[in-house]
Amino acid sequence: MKLKAMYSFLNADLRAVEKELEETVRSDYAQLSEAALHLLQAGGKRIRPVFVLLAAKFGTYDIERVKHVAVALELIHMASLVHDDVIDDAELRRGRQTIKAKWSNRFAMYAGDYMFARSLELMTRLENPRAHRILANTIVEVCRGEIEQIKDKYRFDQNLRCYLRRIKRKTALLIAASCQLGAIAANAAKEVADRLNLFGYYVGMSFQITDDILDFTGTEAQLGKPAGSDLLQGNVTLPVLFAMEDERARERITAVHPKTTPDEMKEIIALIKQTDAIEKSYALSDRYLQKAFRVLETLPKNKARSTLYDIAKYIGKRDS
Amino acid sequence: MKLKAMYSFLNADLRAVEKELEETVRSDYAQLSEAALHLLQAGGKRIRPVFVLLAAKFGTYDIERVKHVAVALELIHMASLVHDDVIDDAELRRGRQTIKAKWSNRFAMYAGDYMFARSLELMTRLENPRAHRILANTIVEVCRGEIEQIKDKYRFDQNLRCYLRRIKRKTALLIAASCQLGAIAANAAKEVADRLNLFGYYVGMSFQITDDILDFTGTEAQLGKPAGSDLLQGNVTLPVLFAMEDERARERITAVHPKTTPDEMKEIIALIKQTDAIEKSYALSDRYLQKAFRVLETLPKNKARSTLYDIAKYIGKRDS
Repeated sequence: MKLKAMYSFLNADLRAVEKELEETVRSDYAQLSEAALHLLQAGGKRIRPVFVLLAAKFGTYDIERVKHVAVALELIHMASLVHDDVIDDAELRRGRQTIKAKWSNRFAMYAGDYMFARSLELMTRLENPRAHRILANTIVEVCRGEIEQIKDKYRFDQNLRCYLRRIKRKTALLIAASCQLGAIAANAAKEVADRLNLFGYYVGMSFQITDDILDFTGTEAQLGKPAGSDLLQGNVTLPVLFAMEDERARERITAVHPKTTPDEMKEIIALIKQTDAIEKSYALSDRYLQKAFRVLETLPKNKARSTLYDIAKYIGKRDS
Repeated sequence: MKLKAMYSFLNADLRAVEKELEETVRSDYAQLSEAALHLLQAGGKRIRPVFVLLAAKFGTYDIERVKHVAVALELIHMASLVHDDVIDDAELRRGRQTIKAKWSNRFAMYAGDYMFARSLELMTRLENPRAHRILANTIVEVCRGEIEQIKDKYRFDQNLRCYLRRIKRKTALLIAASCQLGAIAANAAKEVADRLNLFGYYVGMSFQITDDILDFTGTEAQLGKPAGSDLLQGNVTLPVLFAMEDERARERITAVHPKTTPDEMKEIIALIKQTDAIEKSYALSDRYLQKAFRVLETLPKNKARSTLYDIAKYIGKRDS
């Protein structure tokens, strides 16, 4: 089953989210509107809004209330992508030019700032100080994750803990917050919101690990950028860490630098695939997925729960 | 009277603010702590915390409660400076290397993001959705002001309205929010908080106009950077707009570009000073100041009110 088919019953509400997303980023500044729409139209799974909506189904679901939260979470994600592309000096994202490439680093900086700020503004439509606090804490953690990513670039001596902490901050906590805040916006019981938060964390970890695997196993057409881009940019991900247990692979990997040629990268990717790195990475992704499923089992049984199950399963196994 | 002497009765509380400011920016990341402390130690007037504290005196003053707000506002200001320096490609600020010069544009981007995020986190210690909303709106406006500043760079055909809108967003609204949020944190009456907001707006406008004048009339020692830096970076400020009414000055000014030499800049500054631009700019600054005073007169008479009066007067007339 395709991802979108899993939550087709949310289609009308997701259209409302998309509409609000567009209205929110549209601004008086032609260039900014253009940049934001450029990013929106590049697509993306909108997985954070989907989690917000599904989590809200565990409370008193009101799309008018919950859509602000869904848009806020997606905007924070988009803002962090815009800033990430500056850090990574990335030219392409989802097959399209990045904002920093199409405009400039400076413009990308403020475009990201603006999206961050607008997301906060949206969130304050919810008169709930706890929700504001959770969002603020989450943004701080995302920033920490991004700072760690700069700090850890081309550091081939980092360990697994370092990697896991980074993806927790960079990815998993935002997905966890999407689940938690969706539940809070729908006035679900605190216990339920907390479990959804934990579920989101585990799914987020699995999601990012799979993403990091795909950087090596995906084709350029699937990825929208050349395979191995993460490694070329110095991001030491899980498959890289596992591959470096092999002496020959380690030697080649630790010599990667920003000017490593596409042909050399192809060789290195082939070398990584010859090790058991991909297999071991999938196994760890799967362990997080199993934890996510166990949390789900403690939640009330409903359509949202089975959909969360399907999405989580898809995310951990996806090939693009 | 010196600025600091005007509010010496707040010294103990300002030390508490300074301490919390340091603790807030100190992080697990050595480089980030170093960068933030570098910025803190460069000093600055801490005028936003002072406004927060004085505004809080119109309600039930509790430094433990109000200090988070004071720190949050100063952090937002600092974060915007860090991002501004990236935009302006500025090497010096307050006589010290900027973060982007000492480290890199990328690092400055995330250091700014982190400070923004931490300020939000602090603000949510106040269980007051209205305060959160005001802060979020203010940050959006600051971002808009910064985007306008990029857009308007080297646009010598912009008008007065364009300049005033930009400084409102970039500066005045943050000072207005400092006053308003200080009052709200102290549970002052809404009417009082709203008047303090208006007072802050007028003072902020006067403050930024004076700042823009000093860029031409100040010495390098006073400014911590060469005179005319704003213009060299393409920022078309009030004295520039007025000076361009003179045909000869207009011709020289509109030819300014990033590579204009220091000697040429000196000539252009001299030319601007020969026009009535400085005088006219001070006159407009003074008009805002008079409006600020009139708002003050409608507030309860107390020590805080007379101090706000003194500070406002100083800010509008200062020479450094």
